[in-house]
Amino acid sequence: MKLLRVGAAGAERPALLDEDGTTLRDLSALVTDVDGALLADPAALGRIRDAAASGELPVLDGGGTGGPRVGPPLARIGKIVCIGLNYHDHAAETGAPIPVEPIIFFKAPDTVVGPDDTVLVPRGSRKTDWEVELAVVIGRTARYLDSAEDGLAHVAGYAVSHDVSEREFQIERGGTWDKGKNCETFNPLGPWLVTADEVPDPQALRLSLRVNGETKQDGTTAEQIFGVGEVVRYVSHFMTLYPGDVINTGTPAGVAMGHPEPKPYLRAGDVVELEIEGLGRQRQVLKDA
Amino acid sequence: MKLLRVGAAGAERPALLDEDGTTLRDLSALVTDVDGALLADPAALGRIRDAAASGELPVLDGGGTGGPRVGPPLARIGKIVCIGLNYHDHAAETGAPIPVEPIIFFKAPDTVVGPDDTVLVPRGSRKTDWEVELAVVIGRTARYLDSAEDGLAHVAGYAVSHDVSEREFQIERGGTWDKGKNCETFNPLGPWLVTADEVPDPQALRLSLRVNGETKQDGTTAEQIFGVGEVVRYVSHFMTLYPGDVINTGTPAGVAMGHPEPKPYLRAGDVVELEIEGLGRQRQVLKDA
Repeated sequence: MKLLRVGAAGAERPALLDEDGTTLRDLSALVTDVDGALLADPAALGRIRDAAASGELPVLDGGGTGGPRVGPPLARIGKIVCIGLNYHDHAAETGAPIPVEPIIFFKAPDTVVGPDDTVLVPRGSRKTDWEVELAVVIGRTARYLDSAEDGLAHVAGYAVSHDVSEREFQIERGGTWDKGKNCETFNPLGPWLVTADEVPDPQALRLSLRVNGETKQDGTTAEQIFGVGEVVRYVSHFMTLYPGDVINTGTPAGVAMGHPEPKPYLRAGDVVELEIEGLGRQRQVLKDA
Repeated sequence: MKLLRVGAAGAERPALLDEDGTTLRDLSALVTDVDGALLADPAALGRIRDAAASGELPVLDGGGTGGPRVGPPLARIGKIVCIGLNYHDHAAETGAPIPVEPIIFFKAPDTVVGPDDTVLVPRGSRKTDWEVELAVVIGRTARYLDSAEDGLAHVAGYAVSHDVSEREFQIERGGTWDKGKNCETFNPLGPWLVTADEVPDPQALRLSLRVNGETKQDGTTAEQIFGVGEVVRYVSHFMTLYPGDVINTGTPAGVAMGHPEPKPYLRAGDVVELEIEGLGRQRQVLKDA
């Protein structure tokens, strides 16, 4: 299923994208929202599935283009764990050695916006950069898991995530990467939360990103150093993952930082478009904060 | 005012500690919880103040010793921003240079437990360490603040915070400090949220911590490299702070990592007691995860 949330920011209602790929169905009579509580409730998910199959769910006005605003597909995110340098080609372009174990940093859930919302270039920023990423949404509490298979079994679904990053804040201002990862609007998410049953192999997804129409990133999750299941297993040994937590699993090569000088960092007016095969597209216009 | 939340984990009710320092008053008829929404609502805070002055708030059974469990004094925490190496004496004991600007890392809100709840030593941990800290609770949305004075004006109150840390996970496992800061139960908070009007000078608070009865940390916030107002101002340039966000402002000297070998890292059975002048005491028993 493709779950989403549509409506004004802060007042989104839960919806389902029909298998035709254009019709939006209203889920608000069935569930209060798309959140960790829903993802941890197989009966509730089953009711959505049954209702979808019956064809009786009410159609939401404005599906398809020109429709209502699409918000992030997940409400009440508990935490966003991010994996750094998790693609062979991206680690190479940054000049960093291949990590021997996953690098972890955080984004605050309040950085999350809808897939087509404005992204703000922070005041004083000279190095705002893009990163298309596969987001993993946790569906079951994960503590000290034993295997990558068990890690995958704790995944409720997947989404497109934009891990917007300010490189000077991240790297040149002392301390940890978090300083350049948590500016307002720095994590567009969605459009959909695609349930795991529709993503048979999360290590075979093509990810791409364009800036002002020019392709900058065009990679595949096959290049991930640590695959989704292993990432979930690994993280569960350092913290407990709860339903509704998100893991941004890293970005492939092609970020601005990896370009020769002058590096093409983002500025107000730039347009970034992201896509992951089967998970949908994002489009953001940059503005000054 | 000293606000708190009492009752079973996940079912706490809002309460007020009387000026006598022992009587607990039930606030649940007045407010739904102690959270960012309450802290951002001067009228609601005023109603609590008036009700407290009237002496008519119902007494909660079991105030004082032997009373009900005390939970964390703040619900629905948005994010926890932590400042690293923010005391002259602590920076010195770790051998790190004095930071030229604040070091930022994160704890996830799901690490927060009550002040006297069990703290779990993570599986595989050999270097679980203590850190008594002054927590700052944000009361107004803070974006790109201009001055430390303005920073202070965005603070709703203060609490005792225990920034439990696993040093091997934090420093020796690749990536950022977050890996050693987010294990389950790693952020006891409380007992009280003391409103800012009762803390005239946050840079003149004595903080102390004992392990199994032996004093390990005994410092003062006067030793902070970046004071509370400056920390809030600084952080607001890298991320937006919202009501109900928390900043752990760093720890003074005396952590296990700063001791000569063999360093006295925490083990199951150890008892840690923390106190900040005017903000109350915590007491945790360590257990294995």
